[in-house]
Amino acid sequence: MLKVGIYGGSGYTGQELLRLLIGHPDTDIVAITSRKFKNLAVSEVYPAFAGMTDLKFVDSSPQQLVSSCDVVFLAVPHGEAMTVAPVFVAAGVKVIDLSADFRLRDVSVYEEWYTRHTSPDLVQEAVYGLPELYRNELKDANLVANPGCYPTSIILGVAPLLRDGMIDPSSIIADSKSGVSGAGRDLQLGSLFCEVNEGFKAYKIGSHRHTPEIEQELGRIAKTALTISFTPHLVPINRGILSTIYADLNNGISASEIFDLYDNFYGDERFVRICKPGTLPNISSVRGSNNCDIGITVDGRTGRVVIVSVIDNLVKGASGQAVQNMNLMCGLPEGAGLDHISLFP
Amino acid sequence: MLKVGIYGGSGYTGQELLRLLIGHPDTDIVAITSRKFKNLAVSEVYPAFAGMTDLKFVDSSPQQLVSSCDVVFLAVPHGEAMTVAPVFVAAGVKVIDLSADFRLRDVSVYEEWYTRHTSPDLVQEAVYGLPELYRNELKDANLVANPGCYPTSIILGVAPLLRDGMIDPSSIIADSKSGVSGAGRDLQLGSLFCEVNEGFKAYKIGSHRHTPEIEQELGRIAKTALTISFTPHLVPINRGILSTIYADLNNGISASEIFDLYDNFYGDERFVRICKPGTLPNISSVRGSNNCDIGITVDGRTGRVVIVSVIDNLVKGASGQAVQNMNLMCGLPEGAGLDHISLFP
Amino acid sequence: MLKVGIYGGSGYTGQELLRLLIGHPDTDIVAITSRKFKNLAVSEVYPAFAGMTDLKFVDSSPQQLVSSCDVVFLAVPHGEAMTVAPVFVAAGVKVIDLSADFRLRDVSVYEEWYTRHTSPDLVQEAVYGLPELYRNELKDANLVANPGCYPTSIILGVAPLLRDGMIDPSSIIADSKSGVSGAGRDLQLGSLFCEVNEGFKAYKIGSHRHTPEIEQELGRIAKTALTISFTPHLVPINRGILSTIYADLNNGISASEIFDLYDNFYGDERFVRICKPGTLPNISSVRGSNNCDIGITVDGRTGRVVIVSVIDNLVKGASGQAVQNMNLMCGLPEGAGLDHISLFP
Amino acid sequence: MLKVGIYGGSGYTGQELLRLLIGHPDTDIVAITSRKFKNLAVSEVYPAFAGMTDLKFVDSSPQQLVSSCDVVFLAVPHGEAMTVAPVFVAAGVKVIDLSADFRLRDVSVYEEWYTRHTSPDLVQEAVYGLPELYRNELKDANLVANPGCYPTSIILGVAPLLRDGMIDPSSIIADSKSGVSGAGRDLQLGSLFCEVNEGFKAYKIGSHRHTPEIEQELGRIAKTALTISFTPHLVPINRGILSTIYADLNNGISASEIFDLYDNFYGDERFVRICKPGTLPNISSVRGSNNCDIGITVDGRTGRVVIVSVIDNLVKGASGQAVQNMNLMCGLPEGAGLDHISLFP
Repeated sequence: MLKVGIYGGSGYTGQELLRLLIGHPDTDIVAITSRKFKNLAVSEVYPAFAGMTDLKFVDSSPQQLVSSCDVVFLAVPHGEAMTVAPVFVAAGVKVIDLSADFRLRDVSVYEEWYTRHTSPDLVQEAVYGLPELYRNELKDANLVANPGCYPTSIILGVAPLLRDGMIDPSSIIADSKSGVSGAGRDLQLGSLFCEVNEGFKAYKIGSHRHTPEIEQELGRIAKTALTISFTPHLVPINRGILSTIYADLNNGISASEIFDLYDNFYGDERFVRICKPGTLPNISSVRGSNNCDIGITVDGRTGRVVIVSVIDNLVKGASGQAVQNMNLMCGLPEGAGLDHISLFP
Repeated sequence: MLKVGIYGGSGYTGQELLRLLIGHPDTDIVAITSRKFKNLAVSEVYPAFAGMTDLKFVDSSPQQLVSSCDVVFLAVPHGEAMTVAPVFVAAGVKVIDLSADFRLRDVSVYEEWYTRHTSPDLVQEAVYGLPELYRNELKDANLVANPGCYPTSIILGVAPLLRDGMIDPSSIIADSKSGVSGAGRDLQLGSLFCEVNEGFKAYKIGSHRHTPEIEQELGRIAKTALTISFTPHLVPINRGILSTIYADLNNGISASEIFDLYDNFYGDERFVRICKPGTLPNISSVRGSNNCDIGITVDGRTGRVVIVSVIDNLVKGASGQAVQNMNLMCGLPEGAGLDHISLFP
Repeated sequence: MLKVGIYGGSGYTGQELLRLLIGHPDTDIVAITSRKFKNLAVSEVYPAFAGMTDLKFVDSSPQQLVSSCDVVFLAVPHGEAMTVAPVFVAAGVKVIDLSADFRLRDVSVYEEWYTRHTSPDLVQEAVYGLPELYRNELKDANLVANPGCYPTSIILGVAPLLRDGMIDPSSIIADSKSGVSGAGRDLQLGSLFCEVNEGFKAYKIGSHRHTPEIEQELGRIAKTALTISFTPHLVPINRGILSTIYADLNNGISASEIFDLYDNFYGDERFVRICKPGTLPNISSVRGSNNCDIGITVDGRTGRVVIVSVIDNLVKGASGQAVQNMNLMCGLPEGAGLDHISLFP
Repeated sequence: MLKVGIYGGSGYTGQELLRLLIGHPDTDIVAITSRKFKNLAVSEVYPAFAGMTDLKFVDSSPQQLVSSCDVVFLAVPHGEAMTVAPVFVAAGVKVIDLSADFRLRDVSVYEEWYTRHTSPDLVQEAVYGLPELYRNELKDANLVANPGCYPTSIILGVAPLLRDGMIDPSSIIADSKSGVSGAGRDLQLGSLFCEVNEGFKAYKIGSHRHTPEIEQELGRIAKTALTISFTPHLVPINRGILSTIYADLNNGISASEIFDLYDNFYGDERFVRICKPGTLPNISSVRGSNNCDIGITVDGRTGRVVIVSVIDNLVKGASGQAVQNMNLMCGLPEGAGLDHISLFP
């Protein structure tokens, strides 16, 4: 059994890691840390876990955890992850960081969008944890930068088109919609039920921090620097992201070519499902599962292709993908502990 | 007092007309028709109206209504409106048609997207009922084609940019999100609570019937034919539409020029509110009101402008705009009966 | 025009007072106070009010407000209201207090359930602001204790039965369900969207502070002290309270007698609507309106009567009832400014 | 591997059986029937199952299914189940009926509340499928009447009190609240999103068909006939039932005695979790799981005990309990395939 630690367990992603890892056949959770919930039983904080685990939150330091863990998930805010990752890596504990600290390969870009980076050397060691693009590198990785939720939905949606040069890389527009759990469990006015429910809004247009992450990865696939328009929106639901992605299709490409392309690109992927022509995905079909469903529309009138991709932001967009990465890093079957069927309705 | 009829009152737009007209200081509702609810009191079908009106639904023909009405709202499906509108118009009853039957000026376009048109002559008489664009024509109109909900949000959002040639007309992408009342009150699987709630989806990408309506009106403003990408989505809320509209900005135009443009374009408009720079609108700020709120972001990185516009699809997107049109056609103050403040939370 | 002040305008009840008073034909809002939002325009804090008012929040003291106001609404927490009410009352400004500070006639009961009372003398002057029970007293009142939301729904629901001795006063059980706005706009974990949405819970069973208020008023009607079981629940909706009230019916009373009783008791009441036999009320029929809808079921099998009453907790349960009280205190038509039809859907 | 059939798979309970049985380690689903979806792949009807199963819906008769199934779930409406159950039972196929047809032991009571019974003899053979009460009988059962959703929540909530004579059996009031999936997937106006969302209502007060089922089982526990007041309500959420149950406590019983009673009664039960004193359950803690969480409040002021119990109506209230029953009937571990942790948020 793999000995697993969760460093920072008081938010929704920490809790979702618990749900997935308690059900994982090959892991033992040896510790989950939280300053806020120190010494409380997990089941006191999250009654859903009553009877499912005897774990208590501890306020252990990375130094205290290294000896007991084979692998650790960092579920702390950006800025904090970069200070604890080195401790684990140096001790030979494999690290999956769910924050943004190791996602941007260019430290200066990170510092422009986030804050000063205190572990720039480690950035080069990190592997971007999108298994569908970096499976081989992940198998040997000691430090994985788990992708952002929006980037996961957008990169998976548009990667095949970019790799095969089917679209104009400068034309990409990603209009994304996220459930409220993406904002985390912090107390903020904009997360109150009455402020969100029966409303809908866009936010941080053109300035959301996931923008450079998306551009970095799309640029690598396209083998050219590119900028995108990225607009996040808040949907009054708990979980899920849907990204609607627009791009100008190069001349003379048919819809059936595009569908073939996606089928080939994702042929053996367990967690990417391509919708049949004429059908489109719904967030409710992936809720609670690690799937990314992708629907494709070629619009002959405008010469554009419109991709719709959906994920559960807490699973494929965070904790599920983190477990998928752990499986790869640790030689377990990639889908172990991730066979949940979406809960619908 | 203006004598008003509602022809087709069993859906949400009919009901919303009732809410607005009962509260209107200058109108008497003389009849509301419904085959389904014939002889039932309005308050039996919609308990919200108990104590507010003694109206009963009747199953009267247009011929029976003409003598008692000064003005009539048609809230029947497309295809049916074109058969009853001529009766009212011929009898000198002013008509506001909430269906699509008289919105498309080119009958062949209508027939391509909808069905055969049986009153093509009347199409030429109809005025498109967007007061912010056609106020003068509406004052003299006998037949008004009340705009679709999506078109209202998109046309108001992008009209200033097109009129002043600020954007590339071929670059417009409208990503719209609608509450569920937009689907009407018909029994269909996709409108069931459990099918919609906690879900989110796109539908009819590039093929929604509002597409030609939007293109017609934007083309008139731009003084050139154009095509747009239009993607509707379904949001699990009762009311509201938010449209996020992308367009390539012509070179050298600053954000402050754009804000000035919108302020000038909509300066005296009572029902269009421009958000201050740096702020964006929320559907919850217009719920129940006839307002259209518009937020503007100029994204220097990509050279695009991103417009976000919100309306209540049942008010400014349907029944409220219809009342605004009635006010104009009948010489009443344009805002009469439309001074509702949004219900929040 | 009546000069009105709102003391404490940063919460949902303050905001709802604004919505109602801006639309009121006989009032001028001369000031709305808020420490948190001092100097901000109301429309900056609540975009729904853009274009509807030029008011700014001020941080004035009661002493500063007395000279400009004829009447003032106190929308501050309990404990604070009792310290400012005396200033206004002493200056001859009529006061409607939306907090609990003056609702309990027995100061010792108040102190048992709340906190020490610093204005016990004023308690005796206060009139409990339920117009359907205390209309005459309210006309002469200088200080009105506006009822709690749960108490309003329960007292109106069961008053006729108690007055006429139809039920066993010791048998009353009130199972109430409230929308989330009842918890206010404070930042608390339990009010976050993801904590509430798709959930449902009871809270404070047998210990909610509205219990003594309900018992006081029911006891007065029954002319005997009584205790009730009161269980509040949280419903994932913005607005509304539904109370299901059970009581043992005295022998030999028929359903039609009960309906007659309610029809007589509430015959001329504008804001209480009795549902026809066989029909039951829905929160969605009163949303945004000042109505209380009451449905009655006599269950012969068990010998119990089951009353269901619904209100909008922010209107009849708070700000709407406060305006109704203002109208009575100030000699205006009781329903002035309160003719909103429920917003449905 | 156990060969399992699902007879009637087009509704939410059939779909939930699929979710649970696909994940069950000891079962093979050999057939799922549906007239409506005949020949369609399960994944076409429910996209959540894409990649998870190759099953297609068939329109097979019971006669066609008997040879291939060891056990069959009947997920057809009441009235239909009684006509097909005999075919399976006669052929030695174990039957778990999710309808009401075999729940009421007294056929005349069934016929009073439902319809004429065409298999009265089989009624005597059926075992009521509440494992916490009838585990031993279930192990030998050939025909199990799977309990209703409301009854499951209420019976589990109050059984200990009745068995030990702690309460007055004539005083029980059950105020229940259910998510919308309880109404099924049929097209009815009252299940439309806009009719339900932001609303809340009671329905069928004192006349819901689950009433005699609850009374039968509570009466058996109490060893005396009894009647209860049962009021169902509709909550705008997808899944879950919360029942608030009131009863008059016999004299002199302390809260700690009650907690001990529940702890003893449900000591080893895997799927019943008793909340600690001072805490109450939330529907969101059992969503997607087979748990029933029970909170207890002893109200000294009124002499009543208030029990709150929550389940997921589609799991412990239907398909999960059915799988639990299958496990018992077929000699599998009782919890096999039922170890889902609640999906929160």
